[in-house]
Amino acid sequence: VCFAVPEKEVKAVSEALNSRFRQALTGGRLSQIEVIPNCSILAAVGQKMASTPGVSATFFNALAKANINIRAIAQGCSEYNITVVIKREDCIRALRAVHSRFYLSRTTLAMGIIGPGLIGGTLLDQIRDQAAVLNEEFKIDLRVIGITGSSKMLLSESGIDLSRWRELMKEEGESANMEKFTQYVRGNHFIPNSVMVDCTADADIASCYYDWLLRGLHVVTPNKKANSGPLEQYLKIRDLQRKSYTHYFYEATVGAGLPIISTLRGLLETGDKILRIEGIFSGTLSYLFNNFVGTRSFSEVVAEAKQAGFTEPDPRDDLSGTDVARKVTILARESGLKLDLESLPVQSLVPKPLQGCASAEEFMEKLPQFDEELSKQRQEAEAAGEVLRYVGVVDAVAKKGTVELKRYKKDHPFAQLSGADNIIAFTTTRYKEQPLIVRGPGAGAQVTAGGIFSDILRLAFYLGAPS
Amino acid sequence: VCFAVPEKEVKAVSEALNSRFRQALTGGRLSQIEVIPNCSILAAVGQKMASTPGVSATFFNALAKANINIRAIAQGCSEYNITVVIKREDCIRALRAVHSRFYLSRTTLAMGIIGPGLIGGTLLDQIRDQAAVLNEEFKIDLRVIGITGSSKMLLSESGIDLSRWRELMKEEGESANMEKFTQYVRGNHFIPNSVMVDCTADADIASCYYDWLLRGLHVVTPNKKANSGPLEQYLKIRDLQRKSYTHYFYEATVGAGLPIISTLRGLLETGDKILRIEGIFSGTLSYLFNNFVGTRSFSEVVAEAKQAGFTEPDPRDDLSGTDVARKVTILARESGLKLDLESLPVQSLVPKPLQGCASAEEFMEKLPQFDEELSKQRQEAEAAGEVLRYVGVVDAVAKKGTVELKRYKKDHPFAQLSGADNIIAFTTTRYKEQPLIVRGPGAGAQVTAGGIFSDILRLAFYLGAPS
Repeated sequence: VCFAVPEKEVKAVSEALNSRFRQALTGGRLSQIEVIPNCSILAAVGQKMASTPGVSATFFNALAKANINIRAIAQGCSEYNITVVIKREDCIRALRAVHSRFYLSRTTLAMGIIGPGLIGGTLLDQIRDQAAVLNEEFKIDLRVIGITGSSKMLLSESGIDLSRWRELMKEEGESANMEKFTQYVRGNHFIPNSVMVDCTADADIASCYYDWLLRGLHVVTPNKKANSGPLEQYLKIRDLQRKSYTHYFYEATVGAGLPIISTLRGLLETGDKILRIEGIFSGTLSYLFNNFVGTRSFSEVVAEAKQAGFTEPDPRDDLSGTDVARKVTILARESGLKLDLESLPVQSLVPKPLQGCASAEEFMEKLPQFDEELSKQRQEAEAAGEVLRYVGVVDAVAKKGTVELKRYKKDHPFAQLSGADNIIAFTTTRYKEQPLIVRGPGAGAQVTAGGIFSDILRLAFYLGAPS
Repeated sequence: VCFAVPEKEVKAVSEALNSRFRQALTGGRLSQIEVIPNCSILAAVGQKMASTPGVSATFFNALAKANINIRAIAQGCSEYNITVVIKREDCIRALRAVHSRFYLSRTTLAMGIIGPGLIGGTLLDQIRDQAAVLNEEFKIDLRVIGITGSSKMLLSESGIDLSRWRELMKEEGESANMEKFTQYVRGNHFIPNSVMVDCTADADIASCYYDWLLRGLHVVTPNKKANSGPLEQYLKIRDLQRKSYTHYFYEATVGAGLPIISTLRGLLETGDKILRIEGIFSGTLSYLFNNFVGTRSFSEVVAEAKQAGFTEPDPRDDLSGTDVARKVTILARESGLKLDLESLPVQSLVPKPLQGCASAEEFMEKLPQFDEELSKQRQEAEAAGEVLRYVGVVDAVAKKGTVELKRYKKDHPFAQLSGADNIIAFTTTRYKEQPLIVRGPGAGAQVTAGGIFSDILRLAFYLGAPS
């Protein structure tokens, strides 16, 4: 038997009980009279509750997702109210969690955005532009409660005004502090679900994912570092995520907004067997070989691409193949292979003698000395009716991956690429004669942010938003 | 104040209360003493409940999803138990719903499969083969509790043994009855969530969706009839689905297992604007024009495809363009256009005089008479460095759709198709210079069943399965 009494009457009630039940207590028929202090009562009251199944489910679900433990429950058969006893310190959070569940009736997501640069900034603008539609059509309420760069961060419990986030960062931003930021996003506010959106390419930030998932934060990211980093760390994250009921989405790590990871997952989950994933995963390298058609030398095409801004400031970052290797590692692991980036054979297009060049300028200057070799390869391919393409391959049968320059017949889908398109072909037991192919721009702020945004919405749907 | 007493003591307790509170009752300080008969008590008891937040949420959620109303709740502060009072008739269902939630701790889905033919049968086999992995890795428990064909149906509350479903259908199947089947899948069993999977192409079955969604059944289907049928009916379904928190997925209506609908949804939901969707949506028509390269007449290519089983028994079903028009209608509506199949301009490849042929044989015999026109078109295209392709177009800017034979430059992705591949290009605000393209087999039992299966798993994830 338990009941709640006002704090000031606790002493009197306790004495009265002890005196009234003295006999039973000394006789051992009652074990003790216990007083649990610092409790609060939260009641949901409403006329329609009696005839609406699911009110208590919603009520308790809201409390559970806000991580609030319930000491006692009472509901009378008149069914006009549900009353719970909780810890006093949880009281405001509980009230808000329940309010936001019932009155707004929305799937509300608290978001912390890390890295408000080109990608993160575009994402914030996309969310701003789409917020009303999401609220109206899908009952999804996205609240960016924190934005942090490397030096400054901006926090707001009720949600940052996204029409002015750039000014607000400048005017009201405080010193960035990742621990404080994490604490804030996870912490004491009224939104039951929180997600960290890492828009950086930073390995240090990726190393926080485990801790975030452990603390019940969902994670969405285009950052390749966690999934292509040390195998053990990756497996640890995936294992925790599976067990913890938190979600970890990273569609934009491969092909930006193109549906690559989700397609692969769909195939695997429904029991298809991946035989081979082969693709052109770098927009830059796609552009270079789509335009290396015999009219100019390879170094000229590189110079042209650099000037047009299609390469990294130092084109060696593209030509080394590391970025492609990361994507191959991600897809291989997603397919169940235990590959490590370090053991993946990668054919670098940076000539050995130029790897040590002190600057991009020096590299560009010396690159023409090495044109002959690639020209020869191109001509040999051409003579055989083929073209050169820089591809990544996951060979799921032989359980290995490679990144290399390969030759393709001119009627192969990879030979017919234009612009800086990515193309990815899945050969599986079901798609064996003809592969499943996805093609399109695999880089750029708008499409990358779109891919991240899509993951955030998937999270909202997984958390119960209507579809 | 309310309390539960055993049925046989109700009379005595009621009399005692009435006598004890007579004064208060006559004085109007108490309104009445009410007896609510036929109730049952359901209690969840466990040592660890005190320290595990979310137990009550899970408990009440299980009851809510099973549509069980709760009369009264009690939880003592010892927190070893939660006790609820429910209608006696709900008692077994409630017990089972809660049991399956707590002990199995799985997302359990009751499924009714309609149409166990080529597609539905393949789906059942895929589910059988994948069940263990889903249970193990995703804690998803798929229970096929009903399979119905047009003449026979098989029901099993605990789940049909999928290793023997074909024999069981023959040996134990009863007369098919859609109302009874629906009632059974929705009805009195212990699995809180139910989905109807319509693997037919039947308009009558599609006309049940509204009723199913209304009754809280989720719907998954490759059947194009509902979404390409009367606009009003489609809008009514979508409207209900949004409001009812049930899910309605139909990825396989376009491109079978290719990620078409999900990709389109992802773009729209994240605020991208669709400008144009253009594609080759018929594997048969893809095959015909990929092979109509000047070496044979069009009718010869059709005859060859018919013999290889690539066309419908009556090739007019493919050549009429109706199937493509249905897919265009589906994509147009998904994009927000209010198009009707009837008003969509469709260029039929069945010559007018042959529309009335009594048989496929007569049609095939007379088709060569009309070869000249298409040959001429092909040669004109060829002379301009182009090819003929039978495409469907959603022009979201002009708000219209078309199905027609068009010419494409030889370096266009549509010109480079092989086999019976589908190809779909999305041109959007984000994918403007270069479209997002999905290509691959868009028909066949394995890939179509895979697409349906993928939707079923999406449903499970939306209902709370870990990802």
